[in-house]
This record gives sequence, C-alpha cells and structure tokens, in this order.
Amino acid sequence: MPARGGIDLGGTKIQAVVIDASNEVLSEARHDTPTSGGPPDVAEAMANALTEAAGAAGVETDSLIGVGVGSPGAVDPAAGTLSNPPNLPGWEGAYPLASVLSEKLGTPASLGNDVTVATDAEAKLGAGRPYSSLLGVFWGSGVGGGIVLDGKEWNGRGAAGEIGHVVVELGGARCGCGRKGCMEAYAGRTRMEAYARKRVEKGDETQLFEIMEKRGRDRLTSSVWARALDHGDPLAHKIMRRAVEALGAGVASCLNVLDVEAVIIGGGLGVRLGEDYVRKIEKAVMPHLFMDSRPPDFLLSELGDLGGAIGASLLVTEPARVR
Amino acid sequence: MPARGGIDLGGTKIQAVVIDASNEVLSEARHDTPTSGGPPDVAEAMANALTEAAGAAGVETDSLIGVGVGSPGAVDPAAGTLSNPPNLPGWEGAYPLASVLSEKLGTPASLGNDVTVATDAEAKLGAGRPYSSLLGVFWGSGVGGGIVLDGKEWNGRGAAGEIGHVVVELGGARCGCGRKGCMEAYAGRTRMEAYARKRVEKGDETQLFEIMEKRGRDRLTSSVWARALDHGDPLAHKIMRRAVEALGAGVASCLNVLDVEAVIIGGGLGVRLGEDYVRKIEKAVMPHLFMDSRPPDFLLSELGDLGGAIGASLLVTEPARVR
Repeated sequence: MPARGGIDLGGTKIQAVVIDASNEVLSEARHDTPTSGGPPDVAEAMANALTEAAGAAGVETDSLIGVGVGSPGAVDPAAGTLSNPPNLPGWEGAYPLASVLSEKLGTPASLGNDVTVATDAEAKLGAGRPYSSLLGVFWGSGVGGGIVLDGKEWNGRGAAGEIGHVVVELGGARCGCGRKGCMEAYAGRTRMEAYARKRVEKGDETQLFEIMEKRGRDRLTSSVWARALDHGDPLAHKIMRRAVEALGAGVASCLNVLDVEAVIIGGGLGVRLGEDYVRKIEKAVMPHLFMDSRPPDFLLSELGDLGGAIGASLLVTEPARVR
Repeated sequence: MPARGGIDLGGTKIQAVVIDASNEVLSEARHDTPTSGGPPDVAEAMANALTEAAGAAGVETDSLIGVGVGSPGAVDPAAGTLSNPPNLPGWEGAYPLASVLSEKLGTPASLGNDVTVATDAEAKLGAGRPYSSLLGVFWGSGVGGGIVLDGKEWNGRGAAGEIGHVVVELGGARCGCGRKGCMEAYAGRTRMEAYARKRVEKGDETQLFEIMEKRGRDRLTSSVWARALDHGDPLAHKIMRRAVEALGAGVASCLNVLDVEAVIIGGGLGVRLGEDYVRKIEKAVMPHLFMDSRPPDFLLSELGDLGGAIGASLLVTEPARVR
C-alpha cells in the first residue's frame, strides 16, 4: 500500500506523520526542533521524527512513496533548498534539505511552504472541502495566510498570503518584521507576549507568567494563553480582545479584496482556542466587511495541529520532486 | 469592418467610444449623466452618447457588432440588469439596461462592472500588457480595485477588489460606506472634499473652493485638486498627503495578500495627477510592503479617461450577451 510521509518543520516542534493512500493518518511523531547546531542537525531530527512515525505504522521509510516537508522561510521547491528559516539554528544561505532527507530516508523528498501546504490540506481534506475559494488564517506566533481561488493555491510571485502584514493601524504598534501597524503586531503570539511583558513592567497584574512557569515553559504558549483566559485573567483577556479586533480588521480587508467563500482558522492559537474564538473573530470581521449581507463561512481548521504535516504529505503527489 | 461600442456609465459623465477590430478608438462622445428622472432617462442619454460617437465614426449603431457597458452598482451580466447604482437618479430594483439599450441601438448589449472592465482594458490593451498578474487602483470619488491573476480577472463571488474598504486605521475616519477607517475614507475624492469643508469650517484657509467656483463646478473635481496643488495650496497638499499615506498602507496590504507583478493607477484623480503621484503612491507603499526587496512595478494607466469605455467594448467579444 503506497503510504507517504509528511513533516511540518516548526521553530519549536517537528511534527511527522505517515499517511495511507486514502489520506488516513497511520501514525505520527513529534520531536523538539534543535535549538543549537545547524541545518544538518535539523535534518537529522526531521529524519528521526519521520523514522519514528514510520516505525509506529510498521513500515520502513524507504518503502514510503515519498515524503513532503512544510517549512517556514524561503523554500525553493524545484531546487529542494531552504533558505533563512526564522527561529532555526545556524542557518546560512540555501541548504539542500530535500536531497539530504531523501538520502537519509531512502525515498524522494519535496519541500513546500508551511502555510501553503496547511491550507492545501484544509482545502482538500479538511474544513475547506465544500469550497472552491477560501482564506486560511494560521494564527500562532505570527499570522500566516493561505489563499485558494478556483480550487487552486494562489501564491503570487511566491509570497502571496502574507496577511499578518496587512496594515490595520497607520503608525501603529511595532511588528516583528520591523514595520508598524501590521495585524501581526497585535495578533501574533510573539508580539502579544512582548506586549504582556510591557504591561507587567508598567504595573499590570496577570497570571500569565505564573502559569508559564508552572508548566515549565519559557514563553507564553497557546496553552498558557488558553489557561489564563479560562481563569478570567484580565490582562490576558484585554490583550486577546486587542488581538481579535486586529484580526477582525485584517481578515475583513483580505475578504474585501478576495471575496472568497470561506475563512478557515487554524494555527497554534486558532486550534487551541477553538470554535469560541472562530465566532469572536467572525464577529470582529463583520463591522469591516464590505459585503456584510452575505459574509463567507467561518470555520475552525478540521485537521488541527496535524494539518501542516498532512499538507506536507500531499506534496508527494506533486510532479516536482527532488531525489 | 466589425466596429463595436463601449459605454462607461459614471455618476457625472457618460463616456462612449467606437472601436475597430484592432482596438483603435475611432471616435468618442461624452454626455452628462442625467441628474433627475429614472433609468429610462439614463438609458436614453447612454444611447444618445453612443449614437453621437457612432456618427462621428461614420457608422450607424445597428452596424456595430455589439456594445458593452461598464457600470457601477450591482450588475447581473447574464440577466443584463443593473440594480442600485450609486449616484444615478430614481433607480429602484433591477432595470433591464442591456435589452433597453439593445432595442434603442439595434445591436446586442452586454453589461459589466465598471472597475472590472477598466482593469481588463489596462491588462489587455494598456499598461498591464506585460504582466500576467496585476492590481488596478482606480482613484477617483472612491477607490476601486481590479484584480488580474494568471491572466484572468478575479471577481470572487462578484465583489472582489473592494480595495477602497481595506481598513487602514482601526476606529479611524468615517467612510462613505458607513464604516470606519477604510482607505477610501481618506483617499476617496468625495471624503477628501468633506474633510476639506470640515477643515475650512475650523478656520483653515484654502483656494480649493474658490478654484471650484471659478471653474463653475459644484464639487471638488480632480482638476480642481490638481490646480490647487499646482498653486501650492497648503490645505490641498495636506489632505493629499493624508490620502497618499492611506493609499500606501491600503495598496501595500493588497500586495502583501496578492503578491502581483504590477500596480496600475487610474481613475479620475489618478489620471489627472499622473506620473508624479504614481511615484508618491509607490513611495508610500514601500514602508508597508512585506517583500520590499522585489516590489511590483507601479505604472500609470495608459488608457486614461477612456479606459472604462474601451474596457466595456471588450465585453462585446464575451460569449454572454443579451439581445
């Protein structure tokens, strides 16, 4: 049976899956992303994660028909190289990740953009199946976007869907990208944490950092935010309202431009906060939506945390593979 | 020789053209849009404008292979009806504009959206020819957008390209659409005039309204703005800087989402202010552009004020015509 592998390469975790011909997930494995070393160490950890997943599915990696990788940074799918991924150690220039993985695993490897493959997965196998046009909103440390129009991904010149950098406030908050007023400057988890630290310095009280420490984390993960919100922490709620307001304006801007049939909310925060926040985001979009008489459908990602790896595995059926 | 007609229906003017098979403009006529009456009066004025243009080209309207109409409002191309056009007198419900015109002119008539057909004209015959993806920015009383992706118009569910209502300032200035902080609330000529009147009430001095009266106008037309800018009028310059700043953020947001190859600036203000303002808009986009290492090309509309009518005439070659 022609099983295939998928790997979602994140700044914190490497998620691997093995999938059968009918797109069922046979097994999965999750490893930490190396925080030191360089590209060969990252490739090694990726190969280990997939090997573990394959083992759990009772197959050897070289019996897989291929493996796909979804990655942040500048991916060159034809060359099989990855350049400048954010939050990965010791990366300089273009690293031939596809050929290194292919060598280690004994099967062809293909690279794709992490948000693009996750959107593709939702469109083909998840919440997006009923629609021919949609916007995927991946709400996590940043805010990424994936666009499907007429049943096909729209990538522009390779960088379409940078919805995190849609401007929601001229001269507004500083974004991680260095610009001002981007949606991500308010709604990206990294900037939300920076804002929380600033508010605490200014005397605001919050359980956010206490919860973080209790859970042995060194940053405000999606689970830390969810727990603080559950506890009714006022600062957590205040920052989250600010994030949702920015998401409302930014996603509405995208919809006024694209007029797609559906919005699918995923990403670490999106998946963790779930249906309740999908409705909050929908509500925040409405005041800015031009065609508010027939809004698109707003749906939670169906594939959740595995969407990126499942989407990566879909690259295996694509023609441009590098052995 | 198979000539065809094109009519651009605006709130102030009706622009008609007659075009030959090689897309050369043979003749044109411009009539005032009726300010009273109802749809039949508008249709009559449209037929008169096209008849005048046909006469100037030495042809009868019934010898044209067809006529296309670009219109604001809700166009149903298949039914040939127009509903709720803004700024047109006495319009209630769907009016069968295509069949009425067809009857009057003795040739099939087709309807399309004004911004969509103007974008199509620039893409096929104007500044957009070298590109397979582009954003048309029609800067006039409002700010309309047309999107071409992979060589084809993207219309979404019929309302894509409403770039005037991209949010540039959360809770910002009131837009003509009733929402707050839209790009058009700062950059649309109608809102710019409202802002100028408000500033004058508050004691700001300006020549804008003097120039308007000298020219026998009752509102701040693109020419009035251009003249005031030429005179170094400080309020005109201040309001225009504010408009360009909003255009910069809003157009950059569109580009971060779409990543197209080119931006084409047209519309009444865009055409009147010309190349100088294309460069100002480009400069205002750059601080908000995510892929600023390879910005798209920024170009002035090549077809100018006739673009809408020329684009409308391109509807004639489309299959869905109503006789």
